[in-house]
Amino acid sequence: MDLTALRSENPDHWNKAAAIRALTLDAVAGANSGHSGMPIGMADVATVLFEKHMKFDVSAPKWADRDRFILSAGHGSMLIYSLLYLMGDAQVTLDQIKNFRQSGALTAGHPENFLLDAVEVTTGPLGQGISNAVGFAMAEEMLRAQYGKKVVDHHTYVIAGDGCLMEGISQEALGLAGRHQLGKLVVFWDNNNITIDGQLDLSDRTNQVQRFKASGWHVQEIDGHDPVQIDAAIEAAKKTKKPSMIACKTHIALGHAAQDTSKGHGALTDADQLKAAKDAYGWTGGAYQVPAEIKSQWEEIGKRGADARAEWEGRFAELSQQKQDRFNRIFALEAPKKLSATIKALKKQVSESQPKVATRKASEMALEVINPIMPETIGGSADLTGSNNTKTGDLGMFDTDNRKGRYVYWGIREHGMAAAMNGMALHGGIRPYGGTFFCFTDYARPAMRLAALSKIPTVFVMTHDSIGVGEDGPTHQPVEHLAICRATPNTYTFRPADAVETAEAWEIALTSKETPSVIALTRQGLPTVRTEHKLSNLTEKGAYVLAEAESKRQVILMASGSEVSTAMAAKDLLEAKGIGTRVVSVPCMELFHAQDESYRRKVLPAGPVRVAIEAAVRDGGWDRLLLGERGQEKKAGFVGMEGFGASAPAGELFEKFGITAEGTVAKVQELLG
Amino acid sequence: MDLTALRSENPDHWNKAAAIRALTLDAVAGANSGHSGMPIGMADVATVLFEKHMKFDVSAPKWADRDRFILSAGHGSMLIYSLLYLMGDAQVTLDQIKNFRQSGALTAGHPENFLLDAVEVTTGPLGQGISNAVGFAMAEEMLRAQYGKKVVDHHTYVIAGDGCLMEGISQEALGLAGRHQLGKLVVFWDNNNITIDGQLDLSDRTNQVQRFKASGWHVQEIDGHDPVQIDAAIEAAKKTKKPSMIACKTHIALGHAAQDTSKGHGALTDADQLKAAKDAYGWTGGAYQVPAEIKSQWEEIGKRGADARAEWEGRFAELSQQKQDRFNRIFALEAPKKLSATIKALKKQVSESQPKVATRKASEMALEVINPIMPETIGGSADLTGSNNTKTGDLGMFDTDNRKGRYVYWGIREHGMAAAMNGMALHGGIRPYGGTFFCFTDYARPAMRLAALSKIPTVFVMTHDSIGVGEDGPTHQPVEHLAICRATPNTYTFRPADAVETAEAWEIALTSKETPSVIALTRQGLPTVRTEHKLSNLTEKGAYVLAEAESKRQVILMASGSEVSTAMAAKDLLEAKGIGTRVVSVPCMELFHAQDESYRRKVLPAGPVRVAIEAAVRDGGWDRLLLGERGQEKKAGFVGMEGFGASAPAGELFEKFGITAEGTVAKVQELLG
Repeated sequence: MDLTALRSENPDHWNKAAAIRALTLDAVAGANSGHSGMPIGMADVATVLFEKHMKFDVSAPKWADRDRFILSAGHGSMLIYSLLYLMGDAQVTLDQIKNFRQSGALTAGHPENFLLDAVEVTTGPLGQGISNAVGFAMAEEMLRAQYGKKVVDHHTYVIAGDGCLMEGISQEALGLAGRHQLGKLVVFWDNNNITIDGQLDLSDRTNQVQRFKASGWHVQEIDGHDPVQIDAAIEAAKKTKKPSMIACKTHIALGHAAQDTSKGHGALTDADQLKAAKDAYGWTGGAYQVPAEIKSQWEEIGKRGADARAEWEGRFAELSQQKQDRFNRIFALEAPKKLSATIKALKKQVSESQPKVATRKASEMALEVINPIMPETIGGSADLTGSNNTKTGDLGMFDTDNRKGRYVYWGIREHGMAAAMNGMALHGGIRPYGGTFFCFTDYARPAMRLAALSKIPTVFVMTHDSIGVGEDGPTHQPVEHLAICRATPNTYTFRPADAVETAEAWEIALTSKETPSVIALTRQGLPTVRTEHKLSNLTEKGAYVLAEAESKRQVILMASGSEVSTAMAAKDLLEAKGIGTRVVSVPCMELFHAQDESYRRKVLPAGPVRVAIEAAVRDGGWDRLLLGERGQEKKAGFVGMEGFGASAPAGELFEKFGITAEGTVAKVQELLG
Repeated sequence: MDLTALRSENPDHWNKAAAIRALTLDAVAGANSGHSGMPIGMADVATVLFEKHMKFDVSAPKWADRDRFILSAGHGSMLIYSLLYLMGDAQVTLDQIKNFRQSGALTAGHPENFLLDAVEVTTGPLGQGISNAVGFAMAEEMLRAQYGKKVVDHHTYVIAGDGCLMEGISQEALGLAGRHQLGKLVVFWDNNNITIDGQLDLSDRTNQVQRFKASGWHVQEIDGHDPVQIDAAIEAAKKTKKPSMIACKTHIALGHAAQDTSKGHGALTDADQLKAAKDAYGWTGGAYQVPAEIKSQWEEIGKRGADARAEWEGRFAELSQQKQDRFNRIFALEAPKKLSATIKALKKQVSESQPKVATRKASEMALEVINPIMPETIGGSADLTGSNNTKTGDLGMFDTDNRKGRYVYWGIREHGMAAAMNGMALHGGIRPYGGTFFCFTDYARPAMRLAALSKIPTVFVMTHDSIGVGEDGPTHQPVEHLAICRATPNTYTFRPADAVETAEAWEIALTSKETPSVIALTRQGLPTVRTEHKLSNLTEKGAYVLAEAESKRQVILMASGSEVSTAMAAKDLLEAKGIGTRVVSVPCMELFHAQDESYRRKVLPAGPVRVAIEAAVRDGGWDRLLLGERGQEKKAGFVGMEGFGASAPAGELFEKFGITAEGTVAKVQELLG
């Protein structure tokens, strides 16, 4: 391709964009891995966006009212690293560019929010960024409604590729953004007709323009290499009240021998071709060299937002002290001081009144006292509000004419909900929680993993957590999902036994700063097992002695959730036979593993027969507590599920699968010999 | 709503449809659970479809050339049960209707393909059925191309609701169907404006007509209660070469007090309202009673396809014996006799030549010899063909002008691919396999679970199976995914150590009739560890002694995949110190657990120190082999991952996380004391 016209028409622009292209070529060649084509193809869009529109101060990448930039096509990470280096970001030094994708570098293969302050969100798994962005834009609307546009008033910009748009989650994101008229969300589609397997046409012929319009978006089509068109399109996008998609026709790996080919998508490392491309760009800098004039132009761009930030700080200072404090508190993810006392009061009341309620109802009871004191919570459900018990009286519905509403009807979009919640939390100022059936963890799973990986304290409210679902049958009955959540690093998997443990789980989830929580809750009613009020949060220990043996201790029963009351009933039967039985409640294995050995030994001493009861597969971490922690194979047993469930009334299913007090007693007696 | 006009305009039709409505009301009331609104709302569409269009013989629900009917909105299961009972299905007796959702009934809460022959696919998790249907329709195209339209020529009909269309996976299905012009796929959208949370409008305002058109579909909008419009729309849908969507404007729970409300979506059990609805329908039958005349009309409908089937059998008999045998073989999921010898020959050649190849490459080597002898395999990849090594030379690309092509470019649609593969396998005559990165198991997960639950032997080719991914970093490095697959019932999780085990895994996967397989494969090269040719398939044992201790046996090292060669290297180091070390390769835990105790004891005798090595979390089933199976906590150790990975060259990551021969030796020595 002859770049002469492009170069001559807008030489200043061209050189700034060429800096991104040259750095990308050098870094990918240096790493001998990575993706060259996308940063090269989208360099013009990124240059215009940062030069003319992004409200961004490179010296304060965490400034609350900055515009957000999300690289949904995260494999093109050199685009963001180039931008940050060129603008003078404190973290992305030239050394970091030179160490692209190397051990210990902040410039990882995909952009990681936990490595770089200026990276809003970890992207890489396609479709996530554009869906996170919906959450960012919703958070902005919500906070603007609460604090006024003098304090909150910014855009969310996204670069997405064909991969992002082919992933199903993107449709969920489109639908949400359209439904809620998220006018400050602007998506650039890198429309380059190329995927890894070849021409896009091999796998897709969707009319994306028509598709976005069907979801209520404002759509423009432009030449993605023409800075004038890019600028005008962004201007128009900022004006419309709809979410905007700008289809940018681009050439992947522009000016390189691999331009417009799937090879261009990957790592372009050939030295001669690299030189030829730089020549075509008119680039005079050597490897990793950016001519001083161009670097200084970019550094000016990095400072463009400094004045706006100073003015913002002035306006922020005009807020009441109380508002400032609250704003700072919610952005710091600090729970309000009242939370602890509120939870304690609820626990006391529950221990006294001892209601028999499903833990999903117990969760609602907790939220009824939490939501009024935590304005930063945003609730929601994937079309199961009445079943998930996620809506409390005071929240109000988030809607186009009620941006202060704190409850989101996410629709039948578990994945989009989870990703948008991650985005809300990463935006700052919001603590999102959202519900679905525990079985549909499967749908939300890619976003749940990213919450764990990128340290986002999203709360997943997962009701209907076992065969207790009953008649809906095995498709709706989780058996392996506790195992899935527990195997995922940096995830709290709570399965509370009653309303007290449920309140304790919520307290931990809402004070967590870097760990997401899954709260698995029953459909069916459960008795209160924590009948004696304790000030301390026992769930924080992960597992604890709920009931001590009355006769000589021969048995330890361990259980979580609905099976804790089964264990208590089994204990009664065993004690009646003179078999002393301790019951250990295990609401959160991850937290138990984090305790020191002396505590763990106190809870699980060597010697007694151990039987664990959980209406799920044993693979969910039980071997570690049955056979490890001083256990012995010949004295250990499990009462739970060995396969999928079935369709029948719940009570019959527990009988059918032997997850009963009697089944537990039989297992204990078999082990006692 | 006044139903008088509807009743009087088409009285015969009305009564037939009313039978579905009345049975639905009775069965849901009897079960005191279920979903009434959808079967009632879509009764007219279903009646016209079966009366005038479905090629279906109730006496032969597995006839290969029948039209397929897929209830994607599976919660409306009483629709399908009513139809089957009315038409005289041998399994769905009146007793089954009376036992709807009860223990042991074939009429489960959601339709289960493993309970009823006439249920094509287990549905319930929304969005799956419509995506399975894409696989059904692709399978029909493929087999029609292979066998001719005299033998294969049928439609796939789907009923989908708003939930199905809001789930992201539906967009992947739409894109695939549009791209491949699946003209024999017809989707009825139950356009009733209601979801569980209330009016659809609460969560979605998508213009579905425009959206389907954007994906290349033929779209019609009709009154879903007008049999004339329904009939005409189906006629038109059958004529177009595009996939068809018929938007059926319906009233959920038509004629019931809960009509047009979200309450109507659920279980309508009020006796008075039930009676009022039946009165409005002009229904004279008592509970579970269908007037004889109406029942007999429905039974005629059930027999409509009998002649067509007889004619088909005549045409089938005209095929060459060889073609008939192959057709019968592939529909019976029987592998060709040659498969076993082919695998053995490959194993022998590998054991002799001892290549150092990535197991993803080894998988390609296996497919290169398998695909030519198994015409029923259909390969594909979610836009990672060159990385997943799933395409062999002979397959050809499935395309609109090459329906004989056996390779599908699925695009960046892991979920849609997995669901469509399930559909292909359930259609019959196809053994689908498809590739993506192992980490993106997450995206495909809901369909992978359904493969396990509904006993579909789909093969998931999951490459880049650990931190061996290298520079792409933690978003692309699975650590918990082996645990996820192993915790899922009825799933073979293979992680082969070299090209021999890879060939063995493929043999098991392609002879499995009821269990899906996940084959986890490396990106990086691995030495051949099976250097001595064995005729028998050792992978079938799940775990086996790969190398016996030379000195006195003090240690057993267990490993899978890439870590088996690490174990072998550690053994060399230990033996050099005089520490006798057995190496046990564990390519498939599920199969090892299925062995009898004497075999398991032979492989894992009590006594020696045991160390397991796997570049993944210990939760992936290792405790059972380390601490169970006669193991002891104080003599057991694990070398693997404790959290997420990082971005760096792969070799450096194995060093960083200590997953090396030296790390293993250190762990062993610590345990030996």
